Amino acid sequence: MATFPDIAGPIDVSARAGRVRQGWRGSDRFADMAALVVTDLTNIRWLTGFTGSAGTAVVLPDEVVLVTDGRYGDQAERQLAGARCRSSIRIGRTAGEQLALLAEVVAGVDRLGFESAHTTHARWCQLVDALSMELIPTSGLVEACRRTKDGAEIARIERACAIADLALAEVVPTIVPGRTEAQVRNDLERLMREFGATGPSYETIVAAGPVNAPLPHHRPTETVIEEGHTVVIDVGALVDGYHSDMTRTFLVGTPSALQREVYEAVLDAQVAGVAAVRPGLTTAELDAVCRDRLTQAGFGPWFSHGTGHGVGLLIHEDPFVNSAGGWVLQEGDVVTVEPGVYRGDFGGVRVEDLVEVTSTGGRALTRSPKEDPCLPSAPTT
Amino acid sequence: MATFPDIAGPIDVSARAGRVRQGWRGSDRFADMAALVVTDLTNIRWLTGFTGSAGTAVVLPDEVVLVTDGRYGDQAERQLAGARCRSSIRIGRTAGEQLALLAEVVAGVDRLGFESAHTTHARWCQLVDALSMELIPTSGLVEACRRTKDGAEIARIERACAIADLALAEVVPTIVPGRTEAQVRNDLERLMREFGATGPSYETIVAAGPVNAPLPHHRPTETVIEEGHTVVIDVGALVDGYHSDMTRTFLVGTPSALQREVYEAVLDAQVAGVAAVRPGLTTAELDAVCRDRLTQAGFGPWFSHGTGHGVGLLIHEDPFVNSAGGWVLQEGDVVTVEPGVYRGDFGGVRVEDLVEVTSTGGRALTRSPKEDPCLPSAPTT
Repeated sequence: MATFPDIAGPIDVSARAGRVRQGWRGSDRFADMAALVVTDLTNIRWLTGFTGSAGTAVVLPDEVVLVTDGRYGDQAERQLAGARCRSSIRIGRTAGEQLALLAEVVAGVDRLGFESAHTTHARWCQLVDALSMELIPTSGLVEACRRTKDGAEIARIERACAIADLALAEVVPTIVPGRTEAQVRNDLERLMREFGATGPSYETIVAAGPVNAPLPHHRPTETVIEEGHTVVIDVGALVDGYHSDMTRTFLVGTPSALQREVYEAVLDAQVAGVAAVRPGLTTAELDAVCRDRLTQAGFGPWFSHGTGHGVGLLIHEDPFVNSAGGWVLQEGDVVTVEPGVYRGDFGGVRVEDLVEVTSTGGRALTRSPKEDPCLPSAPTT
Repeated sequence: MATFPDIAGPIDVSARAGRVRQGWRGSDRFADMAALVVTDLTNIRWLTGFTGSAGTAVVLPDEVVLVTDGRYGDQAERQLAGARCRSSIRIGRTAGEQLALLAEVVAGVDRLGFESAHTTHARWCQLVDALSMELIPTSGLVEACRRTKDGAEIARIERACAIADLALAEVVPTIVPGRTEAQVRNDLERLMREFGATGPSYETIVAAGPVNAPLPHHRPTETVIEEGHTVVIDVGALVDGYHSDMTRTFLVGTPSALQREVYEAVLDAQVAGVAAVRPGLTTAELDAVCRDRLTQAGFGPWFSHGTGHGVGLLIHEDPFVNSAGGWVLQEGDVVTVEPGVYRGDFGGVRVEDLVEVTSTGGRALTRSPKEDPCLPSAPTT
C-alpha cells in the first residue's frame, strides 16, 4: 500500500475573509458595500472551514458570522476554531429562528450584498423580508479569491492526483479483452479508497469501443473491452474536500492507422497546451493552443468541448478554459488541459492533466505516463 | 449473481404534465396561471424523461417544451420520445439563444409561473429580462404530483431495495472484529453494482463503536470494528434514477444489557411505525408513533432526528416525516421509517425500512432481517 506524507491538520482560513472584503472594496461596483451574505456551501467551507450541509455566513467588516442549526453546533465550533476563522457562530433551531439571528447579525449594516447566482428566488424573498432591507446582487466575489489555491490546498490536490496515478498504474495491466468497463471502474474506485481517498472525485468514466468512447461523459456499463477498442479512462480522487482530474486513453491490441494518427494528434495538442500554461495567458488563448493543433491535424471538428476548467473544492470551477474564455490565468489557479477527439469510426481519444499555474509557467500535478497508449491484447504473464 | 425480472423500457410520462396542470388549476392561488417554467432538473426528468444536466422545460396548456443545448439534442429527442412525452424540443447553442427560444415559447402567455425554490435570483433576473414579463412565484407544484409513485417507479425502487438487501446479506458474515468501516462500505458498494445498481443511492454509512455510531451521518473511516461495538449500516442502491434507503444495526459479540435494551426499544418503535403507515395518517402522527414509544422506553431525548422522509428520484424528498410534519400520507407515497437512539455510552442504534403507502396501509420494500442484531465476535467457519 502506498503511503504519503501527512497533510497536517485543518487548513488555515484566517486570511480569506479579508481577501474577499479587499476584493469587493477595490471593485467599481461594490466599493461601498459593507457586508456580504454567503449562501453557497462551498464558499462557506472555503471561508470558514465548516463542512455542514446547512448554514449561512455573513462576511462583516471585522469577522465572519456563521448561522446554522442545532445539528451542527459542535461541529461548527470545532471546525471554525481548527481553521483559525475569526468568527462567531449562532445556532437557530428552526428556519425562522435562523432568519431572526441573521437579522440581528446585520442590524445596522446599510449596504448588504448577497450571492445572486447561489441564492434561490424563494430564499432571497425570505431574506429581504426577514432583514427588512434591500440586498445588493453580487456574483463571483468569493470565487474570485477561491480560485487561487494556497500551499495547503495544492498539497491536497497533489495527493489526490498521486492517488489516482497509483490506482491507474495498478489497473492498467488488467485492461484486456474480456474485462468490462464497470469492472475497471470498480477496481479504480476501490484502489483510490485503499490509497487514502475519501472516494472518487466524480463518477469515474471508463468508455470502451466505437459506441461508448465517443461519449465524453459516458457512464461505465457491462460493455466488454475488445481488441481494437480505444478505452478512455477519466479518473480522479477526493482528498479532504479537494478534487483531482485526469484522463488517459488506451488502445487495446494493434491499433489502426487512424487510431494512431488521432492519438498522436491529441497527445501533441495536449502536451502543447500544458507547456503553454503560464500566468497572463487568457483561457481563450490556452484553448486555441490545443484547438489549433487539432485543426491543423484535420480533427478540429471532432474536438467537441472546451479545453479545460478549474478544479478545487469543486470538480468544475473557475476559471473555465474554452474559446469564449475571458479569464486570465493567475498563479495559484489549478486547471485541466484535456483536448479530445471523438468519432464513431475509431472511438474516442482524450488526454488530460491537472496543471498548477506557478509564478513562471505550469506544473503538471497528474503524472501517469501518456506517451505509449498501446496495451497488449492479452494479459502479460 | 442475483437476477431480477426486466424493468421494461423507459417510464411512460405522458400523463404527468396534465396532472401538474390540473393541480395548479384546481388550487386557489394559481387557478388562472397559464403555464409554468420548470428549472429543477429532477422535476424536468419526471415530467419529460430527459436526464441531461442542463435545460429548462415549460408546461404549456397542451404540451411541454424543453429548451436545452446542442450537447443534448439527440439524447433529448430519444428520451422524450421513449417516455411518450407530448412535447417539442428547442436547441439553443448559447445561454442567450436559449433565453430567446424561451421568450418565443411563452410569447402570448399572459400568466406564467416559475419555481421560486429552484430558480436562483440571477436566473430569475435573466428570465424576467428575456421574457419581458412578470413571473408568478410558485412552489411545489410538480413535487405535489411527483410524490405519488406509479407502478413503474415502484418497480425500480423495489429493485433498488432488493439489491441493497442482497448486498447486505452477503456482507453481514464479514462484519467481525478487525474489519474496518471502510472495508465494509467498499464491499457493499461493489456488490450493489455487481447486482445491477448504477451505484450507491448515497454515501453508504458504516458507523462502528461508541465514537462513530452515535453520528447519524458518519462517513466510513479506517476505524476497526471491535467486540462490543454497535455497527450502524445505512445503505441503498440507485436503479434507473430511483433510490432505496435502509438501515440495520448490528451488535458485535456479546452485547451489554443497555445495548440490548436500546435495540429492543428502537426495533419496537420502528415496527410500530411501519405498521402505522396508511393513507390519511399525518406525518406528525407517524413521527409520534415512533417517538412516543422511545419516550416511554426512556430514550426519547436521544432520538435526535425526524422519523423519515420521502424517497424517489431524490433520496430526500416530500413528504418529510417529523414532529412538525403537516403532510397527509397518500397512496403512492414512498417513505422511510427510521427511528434511532444515539448515546456515547453504548453507541448508536437505528433501524430503517422503506415503505410504500398502499390503498389500505403500508408495504415494506426493504426486507433484510432485523429481529436478531447479534453477530458472532469471530467468523463462523
